[in-house]
Amino acid sequence: VNHFNLSFLGFGNVGRALARWLQEKRATLRDQYDLEWRITGVTSRRLGWLVNSDGFDVGRLLTGNFDSPATAPGFHEWLAASRANVMFETSSLDPQTGQPALDYIRAALKAGVNVVTANKGPVVHGYRELRELAANYGKHFRFEATVMGGAPIFSLFRETLPAANLISFRGLLNSTSNLIITEMEEGRTFDEAVKKAQDIGLAETDPSNDIDGWDASVKLAALATALMESPTTPQQVDRAGIRGLDAEQVRRARADGHPFKSVCRLERIEGRVVASVRLEQIPLTDPLASIRGASSSARFVLDTLPDGLTLISHNPGPATTAYDMLADFINIAKSD
Amino acid sequence: VNHFNLSFLGFGNVGRALARWLQEKRATLRDQYDLEWRITGVTSRRLGWLVNSDGFDVGRLLTGNFDSPATAPGFHEWLAASRANVMFETSSLDPQTGQPALDYIRAALKAGVNVVTANKGPVVHGYRELRELAANYGKHFRFEATVMGGAPIFSLFRETLPAANLISFRGLLNSTSNLIITEMEEGRTFDEAVKKAQDIGLAETDPSNDIDGWDASVKLAALATALMESPTTPQQVDRAGIRGLDAEQVRRARADGHPFKSVCRLERIEGRVVASVRLEQIPLTDPLASIRGASSSARFVLDTLPDGLTLISHNPGPATTAYDMLADFINIAKSD
Repeated sequence: VNHFNLSFLGFGNVGRALARWLQEKRATLRDQYDLEWRITGVTSRRLGWLVNSDGFDVGRLLTGNFDSPATAPGFHEWLAASRANVMFETSSLDPQTGQPALDYIRAALKAGVNVVTANKGPVVHGYRELRELAANYGKHFRFEATVMGGAPIFSLFRETLPAANLISFRGLLNSTSNLIITEMEEGRTFDEAVKKAQDIGLAETDPSNDIDGWDASVKLAALATALMESPTTPQQVDRAGIRGLDAEQVRRARADGHPFKSVCRLERIEGRVVASVRLEQIPLTDPLASIRGASSSARFVLDTLPDGLTLISHNPGPATTAYDMLADFINIAKSD
Repeated sequence: VNHFNLSFLGFGNVGRALARWLQEKRATLRDQYDLEWRITGVTSRRLGWLVNSDGFDVGRLLTGNFDSPATAPGFHEWLAASRANVMFETSSLDPQTGQPALDYIRAALKAGVNVVTANKGPVVHGYRELRELAANYGKHFRFEATVMGGAPIFSLFRETLPAANLISFRGLLNSTSNLIITEMEEGRTFDEAVKKAQDIGLAETDPSNDIDGWDASVKLAALATALMESPTTPQQVDRAGIRGLDAEQVRRARADGHPFKSVCRLERIEGRVVASVRLEQIPLTDPLASIRGASSSARFVLDTLPDGLTLISHNPGPATTAYDMLADFINIAKSD
């Protein structure tokens, strides 16, 4: 049996959902993957760097009871005291710099701790460095949860499409934008649609990250960086958001059979990867036309499948993102 | 470097396309996967069981030049003389029994040879036995090419969706039926549409396997058997084909926004997996409505993603099926 000490850097919606999956799948992990675990470190905005080397009671953590025998003065002491084998990183971060997650992940890998993150920032801003760091220390850096929750894109390419070359990509990567357009088609104004996205926990209080195309740009940058060996920053993405879209125009476009979509693209042009997020009207026969609400879609054109392979994640939520992290953890344990 | 001797049982469209991929990806396999290979055994309907322990010249094989230093009197001698590490099985077979492929695969595994097959028969008729045989001999039995060419379904569940439970499935699994319906929507008669499917090499001379729903039923049985731990035979599938579909009715249905589709389903009902292939009219908002021509689609509802994950393979061909076999081979080599 493989025993893993798990540390949670961040314990918000996704962190808690992950703890729930771990509980729910405990028997499966033991029986199918020969894998036992306990949570030895957790962070709380209010209480700080908490450590329990015997393992926290997960049920109590989930009800907000963070009673712990020890606290650490900072990140390094916390990670060492929790004797973590895997760190789950879901801290809040600055998408422009990837900090402070980038520093934490770097330090964890150097301390010999595998890292599973749900943050796109470190992938975009530190992919090559972190990948090499992980390889040098014989550890893993995994980030399945960062793009298209529920659709295992990175492990798909790593594990199931070996030796295939990604030629181009087209899809819908920002759930909030797609939900807003869908809500407008169904009669809401732009502002009402934004509010709906916020009410169901999809959009932030400040929704500009989503509606100005930054979230989609960061995801495109992560795909180009990790899957096309083409380091790309969000700033390099040719970006247009959906801000100011007129509800009447959106409804008419859908009725006329040419609905609006916020379409993300990666293309190889003259040896370079060109990334774009654009508001487009597409025909109803386009498979993207049927991707409604918070669902997302990705079509990958490959040298081995020239017309492409599409993945659609239907209405994913925080529990879906958390499952992506569980899958990363299991795959790390399998290859350890 | 890992050296692999490869034997091809069957060298038709798919076998030749696989040999082409192996050639084209030779440098990638060496550089990225530390993997060298040669083809030491190949079968020809005309010339029999051919062996070349130094490795055949692949270019000459592909132009139909099967000159070989040795021939074997039968399967067992052929496999032994070719000192195969992996056997690629693409022989023609009886879908009702899985023979003779089933016997060949069984013998190969017992002889310590990994097997990659494109035949559904052995999966449906021998899955548990072959899986256990492979495990007992420390070898692999892989069959990614059998269902939905281009969409890596089996490795998706094995590698990228660990600990997830498949609750239900809905999709389009028979390319020929979908192409025939699409062609009828665009003005052809049923017979003309069948002929088109035959002309592009999709349908057999006797198309009844496809249009009576047997091909889809075998694929559903393979999915239920391998992914839901529910051994299922094609005969157990509630099956209705598309034979006799009226072209005018098909066109009117598409124009009215309720196109016909041959919909495949797996559902858990009272602890049992129920499989069906049915001709249905679906709304245009259904993502399946946009799956046209030879494309296929699969939506998996999981406990970890309750609204489902969809995969679409767009217009796959023999080279796609061959790539699925290449991917199986690479994954075997990685885990060897």
